[in-house]
Amino acid sequence: MVTYEKDFSLKREEPEQAELADVFRAIENEAAEGVSGYYTLPEDSMAIARELEAYAERESDFLKTLETVAVIGIGGSSLGTKAIHAALASKYPESKNMLFLENPDPVSLLAHFDRINRDKTLFIVVSKSGSTIETTSIFKAVIKHFDLDFQGRDIRQIMVVTDEGSPLDRFAAFYSIQRFHIPANVGGRFSVLSSVGIVPLMLAGYDVKTILGGAGHFAKRFFEGKEEHLLRKAYFLTHYREHYPVTVLFSYGDCLEHFSKWFVQLWGESLGKIDEKGSHTGLTPVGHIGSVDQHSFLQLIIEGMRDKTVTFIKIEHFDHDLSIPDISLKYIEKTDYVNTHTFNELIDIECDATRESLMAKNIPVDRIVLDTMSEANIGELIMYYEILTSACGIMMQIDTYDQPGVELGKKILVKKFQSK
Amino acid sequence: MVTYEKDFSLKREEPEQAELADVFRAIENEAAEGVSGYYTLPEDSMAIARELEAYAERESDFLKTLETVAVIGIGGSSLGTKAIHAALASKYPESKNMLFLENPDPVSLLAHFDRINRDKTLFIVVSKSGSTIETTSIFKAVIKHFDLDFQGRDIRQIMVVTDEGSPLDRFAAFYSIQRFHIPANVGGRFSVLSSVGIVPLMLAGYDVKTILGGAGHFAKRFFEGKEEHLLRKAYFLTHYREHYPVTVLFSYGDCLEHFSKWFVQLWGESLGKIDEKGSHTGLTPVGHIGSVDQHSFLQLIIEGMRDKTVTFIKIEHFDHDLSIPDISLKYIEKTDYVNTHTFNELIDIECDATRESLMAKNIPVDRIVLDTMSEANIGELIMYYEILTSACGIMMQIDTYDQPGVELGKKILVKKFQSK
Repeated sequence: MVTYEKDFSLKREEPEQAELADVFRAIENEAAEGVSGYYTLPEDSMAIARELEAYAERESDFLKTLETVAVIGIGGSSLGTKAIHAALASKYPESKNMLFLENPDPVSLLAHFDRINRDKTLFIVVSKSGSTIETTSIFKAVIKHFDLDFQGRDIRQIMVVTDEGSPLDRFAAFYSIQRFHIPANVGGRFSVLSSVGIVPLMLAGYDVKTILGGAGHFAKRFFEGKEEHLLRKAYFLTHYREHYPVTVLFSYGDCLEHFSKWFVQLWGESLGKIDEKGSHTGLTPVGHIGSVDQHSFLQLIIEGMRDKTVTFIKIEHFDHDLSIPDISLKYIEKTDYVNTHTFNELIDIECDATRESLMAKNIPVDRIVLDTMSEANIGELIMYYEILTSACGIMMQIDTYDQPGVELGKKILVKKFQSK
Repeated sequence: MVTYEKDFSLKREEPEQAELADVFRAIENEAAEGVSGYYTLPEDSMAIARELEAYAERESDFLKTLETVAVIGIGGSSLGTKAIHAALASKYPESKNMLFLENPDPVSLLAHFDRINRDKTLFIVVSKSGSTIETTSIFKAVIKHFDLDFQGRDIRQIMVVTDEGSPLDRFAAFYSIQRFHIPANVGGRFSVLSSVGIVPLMLAGYDVKTILGGAGHFAKRFFEGKEEHLLRKAYFLTHYREHYPVTVLFSYGDCLEHFSKWFVQLWGESLGKIDEKGSHTGLTPVGHIGSVDQHSFLQLIIEGMRDKTVTFIKIEHFDHDLSIPDISLKYIEKTDYVNTHTFNELIDIECDATRESLMAKNIPVDRIVLDTMSEANIGELIMYYEILTSACGIMMQIDTYDQPGVELGKKILVKKFQSK
């Protein structure tokens, strides 16, 4: 269960109901017209899950030999998968290792290679365009380093996730490498619930159907019941974006670190745009982890420019817990007030205390409370943030789903290599 | 060697030489009067390094048995150590494992405990105040979980780094646990080159003297030669902070991820302040890693609000390298332009291309180029950023070295526990 508490907008002038209704209808239209296909992924991807189940049955002997699922992908092709993996890993001590070959950093690539047992690894190449330069380069290095015979002997150890008809798709089709497609109208940063995340997570052993169920449940609640708190939050964030251009996500729990990074891409790339009037607009996402970043970023939130909204994410019941022993250390007795409590209590009460200290300073905050870190809850959280992003994009009158700004750098890159 | 390229200020009105000279003198005064003690740590900490060398000789048999150095600390007590460790780890395949017990997250604490070989681990408890609630709680949990007899049998496996006279210091003195002190005038976020970082890094096997040497070399160059580029950068960042309130550090190389986090604390906590006139001021630090975050945050920098400056950090020669094989994959031939080049070239040219694409859009950028990721260079980089922070603080007329904003949350925390 996920609870959404205290939307920002209560603190300021109320949005017109008519305006919220307009945005809601615009989202309905986006979904109905397929402007983005992510809205229906929870149902659409069930077919992939079933296909994978059949595959897993057919290939169960092979799959049993695998220790590691290595995702070769970057950005939208890895961040969401990593986020779900990290969120749930502690619940799956028996799952296969997951490893992400993302950055073209030779030192970390070689360190990853050292950790890979070649014969016990499934390599999944993920690229929406099918020609992402980092991903294809790493794939080539993997082929060479592990002497991977993708035309024969090792064909079962390679899979491809890409758009239908992309260069990578045609490559895989030519060599009969197993392929999964990403719906054309689902952009990278909205694609975690498509084959992009579903294929590696399911093959690693995660209960993907329940993740999709949680996401679908929230989408249904939104479209049937409006989830007005979401629209009001989007209203506040976008109408006051000149006052509060920085959106901080303060998650209490290490397992949410990669969710934070996924959020940063979703938010930054979707909302950082030139709007219909030609103005540069956006909201700058910043992800932090509590309580550790109370010792880092909190001072700035409180005494720095008042340009930040803060959303706290709190996990009520961690999967494992540990007591703070009733040990009184001589001269350090003043810390004994937490003795006999648990670390779960400590981190949660730190979250509450920090939130209250920001509220006392009139900094706009809200909070999302997960009863546990479960498959359904991480699915819901993903769908919640995706719809929130779409709602903000509509209110900001921008194209939420493209990313034209990064093209120039890619062109310069090619030119630089050509002139070498 | 570290090179500092293209300071922002060239793009805007020139600072008065007199103003820069004033700031330089103010920094000289801070150093001379000991307003902050970090300026002289490169020399001061050499004494600790020598003390540790003597200790290592005396206790060489014991130290040989150790596999792991576990730092129990949070914020300024861990971020800098982690930053140096991550930056240099690939050069030290023979060093001891380093492990950081930071966040009071029960799931990750238990996962860390599982990885610890009790008899082969040195636990270093680091807390400037000597009563940080997360740190003392984790220390208690370590004592209980590993049945650690700090009064007798296991006394050699525990060390303490703290301010002289702090509760933790008095505790350690009482039980004759080995202690190292942090200079009273060195705050947590400026303390990495004090015993805070020196003790764990040296015992793990890092060449700490060369790190200190690099830092000292830069400090000397600054105080003797002014390093005007640093002052001009601080001038630009602070004088145009209403235009560019967000400071992005875009580091190309995974080994700099924790350096980024260290920078976020240093910058955010130091500069996020209520200034002399009672105004909220600051610069919001954001750390990203290239090329991976080109696929995440870059679109926002380019098309979003033009409120960001971007500093690129580039490593010219990675410690290890790997070629992109000359493999042409059918249908993906358009990616072949990078074939036979190395990943080192790819990541560096991506850095150059991204920087040029921002410059083409008139986004203020500069670049710091490290010839290699060496001990001296990471030391220099730390000192560079610390002095840059001090220079900004002086120009912003704030107290760079305190953090009053976080006190309210701590008080609320204690109250919440007392009323439970």
